Amino acid sequence: MIIILKPDADKEQTALLKGKLKALGFELHESRGINSFLWGIVGDTSIIDPDYLMANDIVKDVKRIQEPYKTANRKMHPEDTVIDIAGKKIGGGHFQVIAGPCSIETEEQIVKVAQDVEASGAGLLRGGAFKPRTSPYSFQGLQNDGLKLLLEAKAATKLPVVTEIMTPEHLELFNNVDVVQVGARNMQNFQLLKALGKCNKTVLLKRGLANTLEELVMSAEYIMAGGNESVILCERGIRTFETSMRNTLDISAIPMLRSMTHLPIVVDPSHAAGIRWMVEPLALAAIAAGADGLMIEVHNDPAAALCDGPQSMTPEGFDKLMVKIRDTVKFFGKTMD
Amino acid sequence: MIIILKPDADKEQTALLKGKLKALGFELHESRGINSFLWGIVGDTSIIDPDYLMANDIVKDVKRIQEPYKTANRKMHPEDTVIDIAGKKIGGGHFQVIAGPCSIETEEQIVKVAQDVEASGAGLLRGGAFKPRTSPYSFQGLQNDGLKLLLEAKAATKLPVVTEIMTPEHLELFNNVDVVQVGARNMQNFQLLKALGKCNKTVLLKRGLANTLEELVMSAEYIMAGGNESVILCERGIRTFETSMRNTLDISAIPMLRSMTHLPIVVDPSHAAGIRWMVEPLALAAIAAGADGLMIEVHNDPAAALCDGPQSMTPEGFDKLMVKIRDTVKFFGKTMD
Amino acid sequence: MIIILKPDADKEQTALLKGKLKALGFELHESRGINSFLWGIVGDTSIIDPDYLMANDIVKDVKRIQEPYKTANRKMHPEDTVIDIAGKKIGGGHFQVIAGPCSIETEEQIVKVAQDVEASGAGLLRGGAFKPRTSPYSFQGLQNDGLKLLLEAKAATKLPVVTEIMTPEHLELFNNVDVVQVGARNMQNFQLLKALGKCNKTVLLKRGLANTLEELVMSAEYIMAGGNESVILCERGIRTFETSMRNTLDISAIPMLRSMTHLPIVVDPSHAAGIRWMVEPLALAAIAAGADGLMIEVHNDPAAALCDGPQSMTPEGFDKLMVKIRDTVKFFGKTMD
Amino acid sequence: MIIILKPDADKEQTALLKGKLKALGFELHESRGINSFLWGIVGDTSIIDPDYLMANDIVKDVKRIQEPYKTANRKMHPEDTVIDIAGKKIGGGHFQVIAGPCSIETEEQIVKVAQDVEASGAGLLRGGAFKPRTSPYSFQGLQNDGLKLLLEAKAATKLPVVTEIMTPEHLELFNNVDVVQVGARNMQNFQLLKALGKCNKTVLLKRGLANTLEELVMSAEYIMAGGNESVILCERGIRTFETSMRNTLDISAIPMLRSMTHLPIVVDPSHAAGIRWMVEPLALAAIAAGADGLMIEVHNDPAAALCDGPQSMTPEGFDKLMVKIRDTVKFFGKTMD
Repeated sequence: MIIILKPDADKEQTALLKGKLKALGFELHESRGINSFLWGIVGDTSIIDPDYLMANDIVKDVKRIQEPYKTANRKMHPEDTVIDIAGKKIGGGHFQVIAGPCSIETEEQIVKVAQDVEASGAGLLRGGAFKPRTSPYSFQGLQNDGLKLLLEAKAATKLPVVTEIMTPEHLELFNNVDVVQVGARNMQNFQLLKALGKCNKTVLLKRGLANTLEELVMSAEYIMAGGNESVILCERGIRTFETSMRNTLDISAIPMLRSMTHLPIVVDPSHAAGIRWMVEPLALAAIAAGADGLMIEVHNDPAAALCDGPQSMTPEGFDKLMVKIRDTVKFFGKTMD
Repeated sequence: MIIILKPDADKEQTALLKGKLKALGFELHESRGINSFLWGIVGDTSIIDPDYLMANDIVKDVKRIQEPYKTANRKMHPEDTVIDIAGKKIGGGHFQVIAGPCSIETEEQIVKVAQDVEASGAGLLRGGAFKPRTSPYSFQGLQNDGLKLLLEAKAATKLPVVTEIMTPEHLELFNNVDVVQVGARNMQNFQLLKALGKCNKTVLLKRGLANTLEELVMSAEYIMAGGNESVILCERGIRTFETSMRNTLDISAIPMLRSMTHLPIVVDPSHAAGIRWMVEPLALAAIAAGADGLMIEVHNDPAAALCDGPQSMTPEGFDKLMVKIRDTVKFFGKTMD
Repeated sequence: MIIILKPDADKEQTALLKGKLKALGFELHESRGINSFLWGIVGDTSIIDPDYLMANDIVKDVKRIQEPYKTANRKMHPEDTVIDIAGKKIGGGHFQVIAGPCSIETEEQIVKVAQDVEASGAGLLRGGAFKPRTSPYSFQGLQNDGLKLLLEAKAATKLPVVTEIMTPEHLELFNNVDVVQVGARNMQNFQLLKALGKCNKTVLLKRGLANTLEELVMSAEYIMAGGNESVILCERGIRTFETSMRNTLDISAIPMLRSMTHLPIVVDPSHAAGIRWMVEPLALAAIAAGADGLMIEVHNDPAAALCDGPQSMTPEGFDKLMVKIRDTVKFFGKTMD
Repeated sequence: MIIILKPDADKEQTALLKGKLKALGFELHESRGINSFLWGIVGDTSIIDPDYLMANDIVKDVKRIQEPYKTANRKMHPEDTVIDIAGKKIGGGHFQVIAGPCSIETEEQIVKVAQDVEASGAGLLRGGAFKPRTSPYSFQGLQNDGLKLLLEAKAATKLPVVTEIMTPEHLELFNNVDVVQVGARNMQNFQLLKALGKCNKTVLLKRGLANTLEELVMSAEYIMAGGNESVILCERGIRTFETSMRNTLDISAIPMLRSMTHLPIVVDPSHAAGIRWMVEPLALAAIAAGADGLMIEVHNDPAAALCDGPQSMTPEGFDKLMVKIRDTVKFFGKTMD
């Protein structure tokens, strides 16, 4: 960490700050130029909040050199993490497709979609029981009844299941769920992240609509700091000024996250654009950019879907797409086994 | 609500959709042009999710005419809502300043700051006990012990207190808190909003870093739909491309929210820029634009603050600012009594 | 176009507006609901500015149904446009790689890079003579001398050349240039677009940092409305809140522009992230998403480049990348011949 | 400037870079920690492009300490610049209102509006002759004929005039114009900025829709580096994700620019929101935040305006607003004389 002091920094305050830093166990390297006066801080600076330093009137700027994340940092764990979800591997060359409806609606719907996506080659089943909706008047999901239907679909197919959690209080309901999803709007729901850090389930952590990649990794760090290192990151589109699509898929997030962390990276092309016919080009681009998996919405009757119909594919459309996905994954040197 | 059909919409599917809408109790008004075919939908369309319609292949676009919020809508309640917080009124011409430290640190700190800001004319005391922090390694607040210290400061000054809640499970700890704050990162933590809708406390709801004003009002609607109509909205800066400040204060949010809703509107100039010397110009601008209150961070020793030091004012600085605030509030025709 | 009138619209003003629209030759279809009163406007509404209508106190909202662009619209020209640049075809299944340095620096540099990228399989040579720089104190390009060196490199290799124009006055210097580039900062320099509409050269039009896709197509329409229909669109990253990369590549722009227009679409992965090691994953993702070409910065000595060194590849690195690009283009069914 | 070297930086390359920097006349101060190796660079670093350094494989990061602007820098010129435009002063406590229509349409219109706004107390007249429009099919302004009408209005009122230039070629037409405006879309049209640096007219420079404040000041620096130090900066709203208004007024830009530069700062509340009824609260907020002037659109018949009708005020509305503006300017200690 580098601290840039103001050229006219008060000597007494400077000595005071120096004392505080030394008391915290840091070493200081001074460098004095004509217009600048710097300190290089040596030690584990991930524990210092730059704001703590910036609050001093004598400090002009603070620059981190070390990343603020540790367990998630690729430097601490140079190889890709491979996560095994009931026999389905993801990361380190293993590619998985997670498919299913936005919302679980009926037993018939979820079981039928599960069987269809399994037949097409999906590795995991997704389906929402607790639904975060912008409006209190929109369908909020079947809640606990939805979870039960999802587990029936799991039993009927042997696909591990992914479903979203909205609050720590619900965690006990997720016992038989394989992957717990944290939605974009909860990426910085820190109480939820802490609770997930104490459980032994894989967590699929979605990037918030306006969160930086560093913030995403810091949220993974919250879960990992609690002891649960089984975290999958998911890019699902960010909020920009562009209005022709719901969100803007940040494809660069894949290689950038790859360099920052060893965790598997999944892309959700359905939510990214919010448009059915854009799922294919975005899915293929994600594979080309190095993603470890895809999360795709499939509904047996999109026009009747209670949620996210515009972006849901039919089972037939998904089946055709899976042929291309499989070929593309192979072309780019990953395996879907 | 207007549904714009594709020029080549399949007749059978068109008849099917028309049937569904009529079954839901809506009336349809058709309008056919050369390149367009529209339906005007008559009825309470706030219950229809536009996505439900967009998922139909025959639908080109959907446009809402009615706002999706009801209880928060100014049309339903033309006069400004005035909220009375233990004798301190806000809204409808009544202006309040909420002041105090980002984090509660010690009894001495919070009691001293409380007494200072009361002496300067603040109407409410703020102080954080549960702190949402980007890093799991940053100070997370004194938690329940912090709440106790805050209540001691309340007792020592008679100022009503505002403090942040992070999860529904903590609500029982907030019994003696006057205003429960929902932070920017939790604006769409819908389980928390629902829980707050069932309590009888005033809620200060902060706008998320990348949330539209409509989404902010929809989150207020979540609380109000549960029965709690005592909600204050807070603009605290949004995330943009500009890098010289932490966030960009959206001053236009004040008049725009005023036209959308009857709820009181507060501005937080401390978080907006994250810079101490910018608090004054932004606070005065907020008053000029019509805000009903301000939320300002004050710390007895900003350079030692465990959180948000760079934006915290000293009690002396705050005292001088309050003179200008009082004059400006009066100039713009509001009262601070 | 749909005009939504306010429920309480003044009758006299309504009649006046109706008269104006009829005088302009439009037909009106009225639709009256309980809370709404609509007009569907029939005719060539691309000539009406929605603002002209919004300025009426009786108008609540205006919604376009027809796109505001005509010549660039895929509906007017369903097949992909194929542009032939001195024998190099782009669009409609033909893929081209444009490569070369950010700035032309010396004869040796540009000729050597040109020979190298030709040997690696690039179809066109890029090189900047007039450089738009944020600072007046940065290197501004060799200007006219740079153009001469670029033409020498063209003669030495037979590669057609692409170079940027900054103002209409310079157009006469571009006689022997094959493709005139309009940079992101000039995407809405309308005088320049009009001048280019009158010349008979292919124009490579880059998307502005904060311009919507519709605005990009409207800028192409400016050129095409002047008579020059040889326009290539270029996505090069947009400005967002993310700070780990210079810009955010909008990969979704490729399929979305494909649906809006028939013009060829090129991606610039070098400027998008501004980071050398990210060029490869972004280039491959662009091919997978359906791009018709790539624009890649190559410099013989990036560490000594007067501009954009951090994102420039060496000729050796580019040569290796071209092997992957060629395979990927073939895999996705396009041809580089 | 600080250069942060990679921990494993190659020694030979390090020596090479050190040699280059010394050859450019810079002094280097080294600071070596456990995980970091820094150089502090002493000298006039505004001539070094950080990219030039970042292109070296051994460099991890570069951090400016000195601002990249000089003539515009407040450090070089601690007092506010006061600009005198034909007797109307702006800056350093002098406040001006610039008013008039978006487009000049007829002699009657511009003369009448000019007389009206003069009577209401505006100090300068605005009116567009060359209009940058997103669509080539929209009204493009009366061009040179418009300039002539504007000069007639100037003669009829004695108000100095402000009008927009779109390309350097038109500069000769602007002889009798008092203030030449550079629009948001041309903020980085560097050829235009250079041409304006050579003329002796005041330039009103608008911030681009996605330009940082540093970029705005760098564009002013382009003009000033050419010898013309008579530059006024204008904040007119930036592009964000918010959709309820055309743009988001960045009110914080006023105090931040004030700290960066000595140039006068004007706010355009009409373009910022694009909504007539929001002009008043935004105008008053701008005064409260410290602006030196306002630019407001006034049209004798907004509903018939060929451009920007929705945000234009009537002369009557403007007259009422001017009463409030005058009082507010006085309250905040500035003068409109």
